[in-house]
Amino acid sequence: MIQKPSIPKGTRDFSPIEMARRNYIFDTIKRNFKLFGYKQIETPATENLSTLMGKYGEEGDKLLFKIQNSGDFLKSCSDEDLAERNLVKLTNKMCEKGLRYDLTVPFARYVVQHRNDLTMPFKRYQIQPVWRADRPQKGRYREFYQCDADVVGSDSLLNEVELLSLIDKVFCELKINVAVKINNRKILQGIAEVIGEADKIIDITVAIDKIDKIGLENVNAELRDKGLSEEAISALRPILELSGDNDAKLATMQEILKSSEVGMKGIEEMRTVMGGIDALGHTAKMEIDISLARGLNYYTGTIIEVKALDVQIGSITGGGRYDNLTGVFGMSGLSGVGISFGADRIYDVLCQLDLFPKDLDQTVKILFINFGEKEAMQSMKYVKAMREAGIAAQVCPDNSKIKKQMSMADSDHVPYVAFVGESELDKDCIVIKDMASGEQKSYTLAEAIELCK
Amino acid sequence: MIQKPSIPKGTRDFSPIEMARRNYIFDTIKRNFKLFGYKQIETPATENLSTLMGKYGEEGDKLLFKIQNSGDFLKSCSDEDLAERNLVKLTNKMCEKGLRYDLTVPFARYVVQHRNDLTMPFKRYQIQPVWRADRPQKGRYREFYQCDADVVGSDSLLNEVELLSLIDKVFCELKINVAVKINNRKILQGIAEVIGEADKIIDITVAIDKIDKIGLENVNAELRDKGLSEEAISALRPILELSGDNDAKLATMQEILKSSEVGMKGIEEMRTVMGGIDALGHTAKMEIDISLARGLNYYTGTIIEVKALDVQIGSITGGGRYDNLTGVFGMSGLSGVGISFGADRIYDVLCQLDLFPKDLDQTVKILFINFGEKEAMQSMKYVKAMREAGIAAQVCPDNSKIKKQMSMADSDHVPYVAFVGESELDKDCIVIKDMASGEQKSYTLAEAIELCK
Repeated sequence: MIQKPSIPKGTRDFSPIEMARRNYIFDTIKRNFKLFGYKQIETPATENLSTLMGKYGEEGDKLLFKIQNSGDFLKSCSDEDLAERNLVKLTNKMCEKGLRYDLTVPFARYVVQHRNDLTMPFKRYQIQPVWRADRPQKGRYREFYQCDADVVGSDSLLNEVELLSLIDKVFCELKINVAVKINNRKILQGIAEVIGEADKIIDITVAIDKIDKIGLENVNAELRDKGLSEEAISALRPILELSGDNDAKLATMQEILKSSEVGMKGIEEMRTVMGGIDALGHTAKMEIDISLARGLNYYTGTIIEVKALDVQIGSITGGGRYDNLTGVFGMSGLSGVGISFGADRIYDVLCQLDLFPKDLDQTVKILFINFGEKEAMQSMKYVKAMREAGIAAQVCPDNSKIKKQMSMADSDHVPYVAFVGESELDKDCIVIKDMASGEQKSYTLAEAIELCK
Repeated sequence: MIQKPSIPKGTRDFSPIEMARRNYIFDTIKRNFKLFGYKQIETPATENLSTLMGKYGEEGDKLLFKIQNSGDFLKSCSDEDLAERNLVKLTNKMCEKGLRYDLTVPFARYVVQHRNDLTMPFKRYQIQPVWRADRPQKGRYREFYQCDADVVGSDSLLNEVELLSLIDKVFCELKINVAVKINNRKILQGIAEVIGEADKIIDITVAIDKIDKIGLENVNAELRDKGLSEEAISALRPILELSGDNDAKLATMQEILKSSEVGMKGIEEMRTVMGGIDALGHTAKMEIDISLARGLNYYTGTIIEVKALDVQIGSITGGGRYDNLTGVFGMSGLSGVGISFGADRIYDVLCQLDLFPKDLDQTVKILFINFGEKEAMQSMKYVKAMREAGIAAQVCPDNSKIKKQMSMADSDHVPYVAFVGESELDKDCIVIKDMASGEQKSYTLAEAIELCK
């Protein structure tokens, strides 16, 4: 009967201090999503497997958590089916639902399902957990939150500029120094075109990414291994050696890509986006990075990735423009652009750099020690008035030893401890100890409220 | 390939306006949980089935959503197991995890698992979805949020008083007129004792509950059917006819229960709790209701239920004191008291009484019409300054027909629409239309910020 309790591997409990820190991140992101006009939606944790399957590749299908049908889950399985032990086939018969794997597919499903109620462009944000049956390891969980903002139904590059401005504001408020890397899928396509290797985009971007680490000769050797021609390798050289500021990079690229229509379109888009964000002004470093290729098959225009500058960690936010979000659900031609904040990695960055506000571990501003029935009741009245003034306050519920009650104040990092004993009861006053300075003074209720505000 | 998208039955998408309304409820509850010193925790959506099974009765086990093991889920199933088609046995072998059914069992598991890190009393709140494979019907969903606050590790009745005060404050802020019904399990136990029918508590409370609807004679007939003796029925009569205010009820009950030790303890507890909340003061009606028996097997002291007065709807909040929360996980003697706000029902009440604040459907305070590249860029700069001043603002991303852009303002219930055309560009000013009055005037940026604040 008695069990040693535990939770499924790859999942986490969040303690009060962890919740306070997570809320600090989520609240900052959410406040800015709202300031920028994004509207919140929520979708169910479970989706029909027909909605989820085939959207994340064969590997992704395996990483979906599937929910057994309730009641007789073997109803559709014949004896032959069972004897055959074909896992994919049996899962299809035993499970109709799965846990969502990301927020993008549910969003696409939402847009199609509710298209008659939506005014385009539709700016939505969504902050909810997702589940993946990945092998758990450090920093990788089976349940984690995604924080996505997307605008669909608008091709305007002002949307990209606005998302960059949003990223800038969020990390500015979180006090994290970041570099925002920006690329454009059309530029990558243009490069592949001009060197005559349209099917090798990924190999090329991997090579561009490695140049600083392993040098030109080694990169070229790798490209040869991948089957690139000598002409292509020498045509790629100016791109591998691309340097200077954003303007210099753009000028070089423009020269290289001049024969590629799609490449020139990419340059033009990049100029508009960079021009826009520079005109608005920004705190974060915004830099063109031709090696950036995240989700290449998905993004069709601007690609964005954010890296923290003072911590060795992967991308902490990413996004880009995509065409045809909803085509798979029968609604074509809907393009959009979006970003996703990586809350868990942002949490790690804030921890490592000790950037969380110091008062997040405070539960209440003031704790009243319990000296017995009458005193506690009077304290409850004070506390009620304080709460009405917006001050988090509480009375120790038990008249236990003062030392034990004071330990509650310590463990909750309470800045003020209040004492209402017999003599305070008579004088209708509150003795308050400032826990930081150790100073102790008598206050009226009104003064105490002022103090705690 | 093309699918008509839908979501699993009993689940819901929440649109922006529904989210704004839901957030209004959650934020009100959450703000008060914090003011009262409750600390937030979160637990994973999935728990080990060993944690969940057997905690909600046999019926409850069937209502758990079970997650198929990833990889070879048939690994532990022999051919004989499969041929036998024993659903319970096969589920145990195919599924290790399930979705949480409520927040109480995960909380109990949390307390035991983290007991070395917790200072008692521990006041926690938790607002998360739960899942039940119930047959969906009006107002009953397979995924819904629970909003729970509990304090464990303290026997003090001040906790009950505080929870009543919390309920009072929350519904006062939501502007819902409520009656808070209060009972005590020990009083019910005392009644059963004094009439000599200790095993018939449930039948007795059902009878008390029906007296207003069907009258004394019919209630007595039902009690006879249930096998109560004539002596018991006549001993119960003064309880069935209990009337008057709380003090009158308490006086009558005290007389009736004087021979029952546990009954008298219940009366004493009730006096302390009612005395406490009356001394603090309250807006909601607080009334002793001897027929209240919710979760009888679970609660051991005070029982609380909240009903909306102006709408025909069931209980919108409930709770009570329990012993031995964590016994099933090997940690005994931990008592606590808690309440759970029914967010979905509160939503329905606020809808029916039209009590949601009117501005919840506003996405942004001000929308800038897009008159072309240069004008839009200038508008983006104004919008950036407004956002920095905490005002939600946006520019229409596309330079589409004014009529189409104005329809965006309408559908988002934007109170101010801004026009920055060529002449405003020259004069560095903003023409703003007040959508309620139709009035249109020219403003500087600073004036516009003042207006929108």
